[in-house]
Amino acid sequence: MSNTTGLRFRLTTFGESHSKAIGGVIDGCPAGIAVDESFVASEMARRHVGANATARHEADCVEFLSGIYEGRTLGTPIAFTIVNGDVRSSDYDAFADKFRPGHADYTYTQRYGIRDPRGGGRASGRETAARVAAGAIAKTVLREKGISVGARLLEELPPPANDSVGGIIECTISGVAAGIGDPVFDKLNARLAAAMMSIPSAIGFEMGAGFEAARMTGSQFRDKWNADFSTRTNHCGGIQGGISNGMPIVFRTAFHPATTVAQPTECIDSNGALHTIVPQGRHDRNHLPRTVVVVEAMAALTIVDFIV
Amino acid sequence: MSNTTGLRFRLTTFGESHSKAIGGVIDGCPAGIAVDESFVASEMARRHVGANATARHEADCVEFLSGIYEGRTLGTPIAFTIVNGDVRSSDYDAFADKFRPGHADYTYTQRYGIRDPRGGGRASGRETAARVAAGAIAKTVLREKGISVGARLLEELPPPANDSVGGIIECTISGVAAGIGDPVFDKLNARLAAAMMSIPSAIGFEMGAGFEAARMTGSQFRDKWNADFSTRTNHCGGIQGGISNGMPIVFRTAFHPATTVAQPTECIDSNGALHTIVPQGRHDRNHLPRTVVVVEAMAALTIVDFIV
Amino acid sequence: MSNTTGLRFRLTTFGESHSKAIGGVIDGCPAGIAVDESFVASEMARRHVGANATARHEADCVEFLSGIYEGRTLGTPIAFTIVNGDVRSSDYDAFADKFRPGHADYTYTQRYGIRDPRGGGRASGRETAARVAAGAIAKTVLREKGISVGARLLEELPPPANDSVGGIIECTISGVAAGIGDPVFDKLNARLAAAMMSIPSAIGFEMGAGFEAARMTGSQFRDKWNADFSTRTNHCGGIQGGISNGMPIVFRTAFHPATTVAQPTECIDSNGALHTIVPQGRHDRNHLPRTVVVVEAMAALTIVDFIV
Amino acid sequence: MSNTTGLRFRLTTFGESHSKAIGGVIDGCPAGIAVDESFVASEMARRHVGANATARHEADCVEFLSGIYEGRTLGTPIAFTIVNGDVRSSDYDAFADKFRPGHADYTYTQRYGIRDPRGGGRASGRETAARVAAGAIAKTVLREKGISVGARLLEELPPPANDSVGGIIECTISGVAAGIGDPVFDKLNARLAAAMMSIPSAIGFEMGAGFEAARMTGSQFRDKWNADFSTRTNHCGGIQGGISNGMPIVFRTAFHPATTVAQPTECIDSNGALHTIVPQGRHDRNHLPRTVVVVEAMAALTIVDFIV
Repeated sequence: MSNTTGLRFRLTTFGESHSKAIGGVIDGCPAGIAVDESFVASEMARRHVGANATARHEADCVEFLSGIYEGRTLGTPIAFTIVNGDVRSSDYDAFADKFRPGHADYTYTQRYGIRDPRGGGRASGRETAARVAAGAIAKTVLREKGISVGARLLEELPPPANDSVGGIIECTISGVAAGIGDPVFDKLNARLAAAMMSIPSAIGFEMGAGFEAARMTGSQFRDKWNADFSTRTNHCGGIQGGISNGMPIVFRTAFHPATTVAQPTECIDSNGALHTIVPQGRHDRNHLPRTVVVVEAMAALTIVDFIV
Repeated sequence: MSNTTGLRFRLTTFGESHSKAIGGVIDGCPAGIAVDESFVASEMARRHVGANATARHEADCVEFLSGIYEGRTLGTPIAFTIVNGDVRSSDYDAFADKFRPGHADYTYTQRYGIRDPRGGGRASGRETAARVAAGAIAKTVLREKGISVGARLLEELPPPANDSVGGIIECTISGVAAGIGDPVFDKLNARLAAAMMSIPSAIGFEMGAGFEAARMTGSQFRDKWNADFSTRTNHCGGIQGGISNGMPIVFRTAFHPATTVAQPTECIDSNGALHTIVPQGRHDRNHLPRTVVVVEAMAALTIVDFIV
Repeated sequence: MSNTTGLRFRLTTFGESHSKAIGGVIDGCPAGIAVDESFVASEMARRHVGANATARHEADCVEFLSGIYEGRTLGTPIAFTIVNGDVRSSDYDAFADKFRPGHADYTYTQRYGIRDPRGGGRASGRETAARVAAGAIAKTVLREKGISVGARLLEELPPPANDSVGGIIECTISGVAAGIGDPVFDKLNARLAAAMMSIPSAIGFEMGAGFEAARMTGSQFRDKWNADFSTRTNHCGGIQGGISNGMPIVFRTAFHPATTVAQPTECIDSNGALHTIVPQGRHDRNHLPRTVVVVEAMAALTIVDFIV
Repeated sequence: MSNTTGLRFRLTTFGESHSKAIGGVIDGCPAGIAVDESFVASEMARRHVGANATARHEADCVEFLSGIYEGRTLGTPIAFTIVNGDVRSSDYDAFADKFRPGHADYTYTQRYGIRDPRGGGRASGRETAARVAAGAIAKTVLREKGISVGARLLEELPPPANDSVGGIIECTISGVAAGIGDPVFDKLNARLAAAMMSIPSAIGFEMGAGFEAARMTGSQFRDKWNADFSTRTNHCGGIQGGISNGMPIVFRTAFHPATTVAQPTECIDSNGALHTIVPQGRHDRNHLPRTVVVVEAMAALTIVDFIV
């Protein structure tokens, strides 16, 4: 199980949804970067926005254990923890020995043969908190190089009664000079695609004109030059041959809706018997608003890995 | 520049479009696999299908140098070469010091500061020949485990006069047991997305219901169980929480059209001056038919890496 | 800076000598292993043995944050921390802007341009505490497979007044079946050598007959077979061609003496001026007794990485 | 089986002792380096020096397939092959189903379950030819940075009649600035140790004062400063805390004698029966003279990996 992402600015995350803490270790962050803990906290808060947020409102306070001295990075590993404060595992009891539809319960058990019955384990959306904390450090490094990352929900749908919605998040990375990325397997767009598809519920990814480009002709699609090496359109999304061309890097990620909803749900047990259960507790009817900062974090972690 | 893909079944490719040879080394292939060289040759031939193929019709004969003894793999590195037979670099002279729109010429030069002027260098589509050769070995390993990989062009558009078209290729991987993949950063869908987006011209990727899933509700999207752990629908594309669920793995990749077309083309030189050039030679008006086997090769290389 | 060791059973360590905590994350430990925290504590205690131990006698209590549920591993990352309790950094003030002889002060500053002035930073011997904690988990996994690791100090020299001594530690790994290791770059002996030489103060490594083998003839050196595939001698130290042969794996590591002693010491400042300083505090005159468990830990981490 | 060494300047080797060719791919070599093929050839010739060389005197001509254009590197993968010209496998027939003492025959079979019976396969000393070819490129890159690598056999013993000898090779790397290496697991000395121990027949490694340092006191061992940051002695061998200190890097590697000698040899078959065989053909009674260039190649590959 690989819990590490990145080759130069490497993040290793740990923690189950109901262990003492979750957290991460960043290895490869440059020395001398000023870390603003209030910025880290504000990023963590963005993971809790929205009227439909789940009941789990713990503060998600990030504690840095190493790698920072008098507010600046040392170039050594930055370890951080986030205590799992509000652990109410009883909500999960009804599902302890059953597999929910659309969830990783079954696949995770097939893969590992063991599962922490108190929640999603490593497959829990809670794991993304460590990504957001590390993403805040990545954004700090990028800001010193004039690079910013911003994402937005393209279209917000009101969730129908007792059901959930998905959506599409567009992300723009500005300030990346031409020449970032590799031309073969480590194309910048390939790495961004992997980063986005590693976010829970991601189901589609496209750069620039994306799927629409499949219906354009070559003379329509190709972005015409301006004399300053910028282009008049940005159909390619800022990446050509896997390498940035200096235009804003633009991509969209589609997310499917949360699959636990307050409706009768047909689960299967390990013997293949079906059971109809109505989930208790509150459920996340629209996870998109809080996924925006996760998209930004993974985009920042991907770009910074090519730049440090 | 990373020219290696895979962690366990690793492929390293080499060769510029106009070097003596291109090729690759596979490290991690299991011992004892029977290699059918005629199957390898037939896969290579699929990279040349279609009335719109480029003029470069070299045989693309794969020569295996090591790792195979009396028709079976030894478990040692399998090195292979493909001679670059038909090298007519004069077609490229007009572009030697200019950057074409929609190409990697500019980004590659920004990245490396040096470029083989005789063609696309490592960014050439020719590099995919090595992927197809290695993909044939990967498919051979998968076949012994009952896994097959098949891709098809969803909708073939006739290219308009003097212009090019893109398209969408759907790939299905059948026979993958539940439990393949990792739950965090190395999700199987994340690795597939990276593999697909590393193919030249790829611009979008989606699993199962894909972008449509962003408009479904949770109760619609979640795939209901059958008693044998299969599901009645396959909106998730056979992967849940990054791990296969035993259903066919289904995904689509969008490709943009080739950007060199037989029309006046505004190029830019390194001083920022624009020059209108009409490309000579024949050009690839529809690269999709020959991209199908590249999609299959990258899918096979991705899956086999989780299974060996 | 790579703070990760291992490819399959991967340990990432963090923490400076004076940060809030040091610790590590183990990724790749199999699920279902029973973890005995009292065994971990006893291993940590072995890092404090000896009359000449330094004054820093903190308990070195290991707290596990994740990856273990009801005493058994989950297969998920095992994160642990060790609080840096007894931090008296004033002892270091005299050296804050000077480089000691035989220390990493100078090389570390040349490498990173920044140094935590409160101690050795990542170059501190304190970092080995995380290795010992992880080594205890590795030993636990190995024990289930019938493999044990034991090291001993070959010859203990009494340190002369106000000076320090080094020594040689021999380690034996018993119970490793034939067939573990790789034949080219990842030879088991190469990995063991790297693991041993990564321990602070290590300066030599040899397998089996070691440097003596350079003076033997081939007919003397080669280990003769018994009919059960064991050998009558073990000059090769249990590894042939990089792969275990089923005999005990035996190697020795030489350690140089600690270079800070209670004597006038000529340090150099960043301008090249020499200063004679008499170090205050207590110093480690014989670090060998407490290095034994570090040797075992690194041996266990190396072997387990080939076996999980 | 890892056939790749290096993280930034990566060498992947391939080829069995009796396959069509052996060779390698270098990924990560900087662009613009002038490659002198006659220097490569002279390095290859050094692998054949000595009156006791084996009968296999093929030219070992290195053919570069990619990554070099008009005599300069392109920054793309450098693939090269060495044809296996003089393949007389009949000499091995007597051993086809028996395991020789002191050889990797048995361990390799236990590891992989299959073995190329025509020779040592990947465990053959022939594999080092690819290391020497790549080492020549590494030395070329280092020379541009003012770094040179030179090794010598410390003491040459005349091999007794019908027997073989080992020996010790000392290597010095000159011109490495202070600050190269990593302080924890990727210590420069740890990487050098692994590189040396990966050479066939290596059995011991030591830096600077080496095993002698285990008998020195701290005040003797520590190298005193000169005002220019050089040191008056070099007991540490040019590396402190895993990082170069600007002094010459000095280390020694012990090699055991070749284990096939022209004497009756007790082999074991897979059933445990012992057979006395007298090896035919000529045998390498002193492999040390031709191992010198292999030591240099691995040293150069290790250093260049930290510098590119």
